[in-house]
Amino acid sequence: MVSSDSMGLSWSLIQEARTRIVGRVNQTPVLTSETLDSRTDAKLYFKCENFQKAGAFKARGATNAVFSLSEREARCGVATHSSGNHGAALARAAKLRGIPAQIVMPDNAPQTKQASVARYGGRIVFCEPTLQSRERTVERVIADTGAVLVHPYNDLRVMAGQATTGVELMEAIPELDLILCPVGGGGLLSGIAVAAKTMQPAVRVIGVEPAGADDAARSFKAGQIIPSVNPRTIADGLRSSLGEKPFAEIRRYVDDIVTVSDDAIVKAMRLIWEVMKIIVEPSGAVPYAAIIEERLAVRHRRVALVLTGGNLDLDRLPFSGG
Amino acid sequence: MVSSDSMGLSWSLIQEARTRIVGRVNQTPVLTSETLDSRTDAKLYFKCENFQKAGAFKARGATNAVFSLSEREARCGVATHSSGNHGAALARAAKLRGIPAQIVMPDNAPQTKQASVARYGGRIVFCEPTLQSRERTVERVIADTGAVLVHPYNDLRVMAGQATTGVELMEAIPELDLILCPVGGGGLLSGIAVAAKTMQPAVRVIGVEPAGADDAARSFKAGQIIPSVNPRTIADGLRSSLGEKPFAEIRRYVDDIVTVSDDAIVKAMRLIWEVMKIIVEPSGAVPYAAIIEERLAVRHRRVALVLTGGNLDLDRLPFSGG
Repeated sequence: MVSSDSMGLSWSLIQEARTRIVGRVNQTPVLTSETLDSRTDAKLYFKCENFQKAGAFKARGATNAVFSLSEREARCGVATHSSGNHGAALARAAKLRGIPAQIVMPDNAPQTKQASVARYGGRIVFCEPTLQSRERTVERVIADTGAVLVHPYNDLRVMAGQATTGVELMEAIPELDLILCPVGGGGLLSGIAVAAKTMQPAVRVIGVEPAGADDAARSFKAGQIIPSVNPRTIADGLRSSLGEKPFAEIRRYVDDIVTVSDDAIVKAMRLIWEVMKIIVEPSGAVPYAAIIEERLAVRHRRVALVLTGGNLDLDRLPFSGG
Repeated sequence: MVSSDSMGLSWSLIQEARTRIVGRVNQTPVLTSETLDSRTDAKLYFKCENFQKAGAFKARGATNAVFSLSEREARCGVATHSSGNHGAALARAAKLRGIPAQIVMPDNAPQTKQASVARYGGRIVFCEPTLQSRERTVERVIADTGAVLVHPYNDLRVMAGQATTGVELMEAIPELDLILCPVGGGGLLSGIAVAAKTMQPAVRVIGVEPAGADDAARSFKAGQIIPSVNPRTIADGLRSSLGEKPFAEIRRYVDDIVTVSDDAIVKAMRLIWEVMKIIVEPSGAVPYAAIIEERLAVRHRRVALVLTGGNLDLDRLPFSGG
């Protein structure tokens, strides 16, 4: 018998995810801006996952994973390691189901990130800020509690949840030419690519990545995973290394991965704030940065940009006090 | 013959305004937030004029005024004095109609405000930063050009335009108990009060004003206009003195005017940014500040808050670099 894992991310897994999470996460709006359209000479559609529960698309995958568990599996709760949005999203999903969540975080994680995990009742377990310490700590937590690991992106349940972003987008906006999506671990990009290409094979799906954390772009070109080494970018959500399961889908369904500078990310973020009056975090501004840096042709095209989240520390904005 | 001016702001003026501006300004969304509902134990409805054209509700009144003009009146364009959102809104409306706009601004007005007037093709005429210089400069501009004055708030055409905010709100949200609206010159508050009370007489309409610019609260209590003297508040949109025409409606239709501290305004603004992921300027955060400072009972009520605008200088945020 073939396990569903070895089959990759199927359309039926995505449809099941959608049914499972409806009412538990937001169907987010798609916003447009005449000002940004005229600046780019394109028709832009912004999928606002910054308005998602817990402030980022991560709520979709975490909720699908948590509600996929059988009663027996769920009994001892869930665990993950995350210094960012997945931790809060998993804590929230676990709270909705009434089970415990153990979130392993480095002891130098920002107060705001700790606060949002705590707000949803997640139990924070501190580790040292190294990959080794994170992984060992999660293993220990799982051994101690019997919790189920929900990886931030290398997990088909999570990928299927993130894919629902693409389903909503394709349903809302007919005849898209292009979808620009940030890529870190690859959970969202792979999910959106499978959903979008299934629904409309002619649409092009492009991953966008900070130049200082370009392992997905290099892996895509090389045809094999080249792990991230010492990533440096303001886009804190995109520092992770590409996961194997997302990569399998990305190779098959994604048309290209382009990179952008941190300067362009900050400019894009500021422009979205000023013109659209919405708050997007650096990682979510990455697709618009690709337009600023003319990494692809968008003129006269219908282009969707996924604004992945809106969580950041308002005390430390990259463009303030100037 | 009785002029329409002496008749005050009628329901028919509001309906005409609505027909006139539809398609020329946005019908803005009403957003909700479970997090803010649970913090306040109320059901809150945020009317998002920060998503209005040119970033503030002022687009409604300016557009109604400009498109109310006969061909003959419009020929020489429009003029106003404004260091803020009305100037940009009037420039935009004039551009839509294809007529010139002269915007008198103090020579110390922020670059961002000058830039937004210029973006819409408005001609900026500088004056000294005193009321006397502003008024004299506008008079001179009108004498020189033949332009029609469109006052920021003491004008029935402007008030009727702002009133459409209230019409949309009442249509979108049935059975509101309370509407909280910022008050500066009174154009928006008077318009919303007339519209809301006409559509549903039982709704209570409350003006909210910064304590450092509390001329409307004092005027409301005294039953006559007590002009603002040296207003000091971070809410730059609310420093103007209450106008006579708005005051006539406010006395009749508004239930109360409460004041809030600048501290609460900054807290409210930050909370709306963090929780709702939308950008609201200090003046627009004033209604939520009234809830923070418990200036009125909202528990178990259905409460609308008008987020009046989203224009501010991102280089000078009151909560950054802390």
